[in-house]
Amino acid sequence: MFAAHDLLKSARGSALAVAAALLLATTAQAQSDPLPSWNDTTPKAAIVAFVEKVTAENSPDFVPEPERIAVFDNDGTLWTEHPMYVQLAFALDRVKAEAPSHPEWKDTQPFKAVLDNDMKALAAAGEKGLLELILATHSGMTSDEFQKIASDWIATARDPKFKKPYTELVYQPMLELLSYLRANGFKTFIVSGGGVEFVRPWAERLYGIPPEQVIGSTIKTRFEMRDDVPTLFRLPQVDFIDDKAGKPVAINQYIGRRPIAAFGNSDGDLEMLQWTTMGGTTPRFGLVVHHTDAEREYAYDRESAFGRLDKALDAAAVNQWTVVDMKADWKQIFREK
Amino acid sequence: MFAAHDLLKSARGSALAVAAALLLATTAQAQSDPLPSWNDTTPKAAIVAFVEKVTAENSPDFVPEPERIAVFDNDGTLWTEHPMYVQLAFALDRVKAEAPSHPEWKDTQPFKAVLDNDMKALAAAGEKGLLELILATHSGMTSDEFQKIASDWIATARDPKFKKPYTELVYQPMLELLSYLRANGFKTFIVSGGGVEFVRPWAERLYGIPPEQVIGSTIKTRFEMRDDVPTLFRLPQVDFIDDKAGKPVAINQYIGRRPIAAFGNSDGDLEMLQWTTMGGTTPRFGLVVHHTDAEREYAYDRESAFGRLDKALDAAAVNQWTVVDMKADWKQIFREK
Repeated sequence: MFAAHDLLKSARGSALAVAAALLLATTAQAQSDPLPSWNDTTPKAAIVAFVEKVTAENSPDFVPEPERIAVFDNDGTLWTEHPMYVQLAFALDRVKAEAPSHPEWKDTQPFKAVLDNDMKALAAAGEKGLLELILATHSGMTSDEFQKIASDWIATARDPKFKKPYTELVYQPMLELLSYLRANGFKTFIVSGGGVEFVRPWAERLYGIPPEQVIGSTIKTRFEMRDDVPTLFRLPQVDFIDDKAGKPVAINQYIGRRPIAAFGNSDGDLEMLQWTTMGGTTPRFGLVVHHTDAEREYAYDRESAFGRLDKALDAAAVNQWTVVDMKADWKQIFREK
Repeated sequence: MFAAHDLLKSARGSALAVAAALLLATTAQAQSDPLPSWNDTTPKAAIVAFVEKVTAENSPDFVPEPERIAVFDNDGTLWTEHPMYVQLAFALDRVKAEAPSHPEWKDTQPFKAVLDNDMKALAAAGEKGLLELILATHSGMTSDEFQKIASDWIATARDPKFKKPYTELVYQPMLELLSYLRANGFKTFIVSGGGVEFVRPWAERLYGIPPEQVIGSTIKTRFEMRDDVPTLFRLPQVDFIDDKAGKPVAINQYIGRRPIAAFGNSDGDLEMLQWTTMGGTTPRFGLVVHHTDAEREYAYDRESAFGRLDKALDAAAVNQWTVVDMKADWKQIFREK
């Protein structure tokens, strides 16, 4: 009995030790994997190889920290952009909310289309019509007022497919990528076609990116003293569209350094990817998120109205940019709550 | 003798101990004074009081680090702007350097005035003429090429009064102030009326301010692929003038947060000072550098062609902004080499 008991105790002890060791190993592995939502496929390996290369001191590929600039598109790269850009959903909701004080909208396109929920007429209004909706709903107030309107909206609005707040439709693998880059001395920027004052109110909370690292499209703004209160007033005029060839222009204007890594998902990001990766003397990294997962999110590319990925997909092949196949490469799509 | 000798030894020892203690105390004081080039007058006390107030945790005036944004004008605030803005001296030199490929300039104002060293005719050309000179000399090349031209120029150009490189005419007290703020968790930005791509090439080296924290006036830029090389080409068109009411607009557009401290020296900084200090729920700090030292630098204010300080001086009194009297408040003007 005594020996058997001892043996049992010893076996128990060993089992515990093995279990503990396993647990520790698992924990260590989880801790050491900075990209747990990425499958062990090519994109993850390419990201890690690039980061290790540019951060290895005494290597010819070493890039000093201040030059480790990484730029990210927002819509379709960091969060969902279907069935329409979140900012467009915001504009449509604002038209409905403001309609009572604009009785003329009932008979004027493209506003009438919005109020009638006539998506066909809205589509017929084209880009010009959408811009008109954006300008009408994004101007006529101070910057502070606009940011409050946008923040209040995002707190309650729900995505029509997933029935969740838009802020939950942020991609978990990209959040891990942002953190991984920052942990390796990168400064991360958003370079969005969306309005900068629409993105900023939640960029810090969602992505850990402070307002001064968010670049986007801008509306003309006028400074004035109103009863001794300094005010920035938003005017119904486009200042700058931060899309396509506008992205490298804005990157140069706002950051003043050429990034060494760029992340996008559509033709709107083509020039940003070119500017980042082509030319320059240090290693560069370009990545395109390809929406291939109709079940967990959406599948679209060359024919899509929002986030069309056509020329940039061809350019990715030519320039050896990493292409993420969301279905195959991402274990999980959306962020953990 | 013995006793006397001992006494002497002891006295010597004490003297040495006292001397050592004094030396230590002096060193400690020097180390603990973050603003050694500032006299112990009101401005220094006001700066220190503000910084201590917003950084004291558990105080009602505490401001979290991400919101400690400080904005600095450049010309006349961080370096000398007389007898003319450094960038204008650059433009005049460029007109002379490029004249051989522009034979028409010999007979065209305001270029003729520059080539003839006719300062009267140049002054008569007014702001419109100066802008013409700036655009002609700052466009027609890529961004990379322009930054190289500007860097090469600043490396050899000399200020006419002090016969020194312009980069030595940076104010030592302001360098200490920048460091002091950064050591206290502030993020420091330049908000200059000068061209952003003119200031950036040396802002990091001179002021410790990286390119992405330099905001300035901009020229229109076009992205294009030239023989598969992505290129940003500078066009002869003004994009944005970052002066007067433009400064708060740019601060909002680039930084997206309202600064809590602003430093300027002229009417061009009035709106930036208003935007920073008036309104807002946390403590704010505004400071105006008044050029009062004709001997060590220059004395000018309400009538000056460059850096006129008139409305902003009146506003400083009303709004309790700190006014630096350079002659009385600064021990040393220029940076140590």
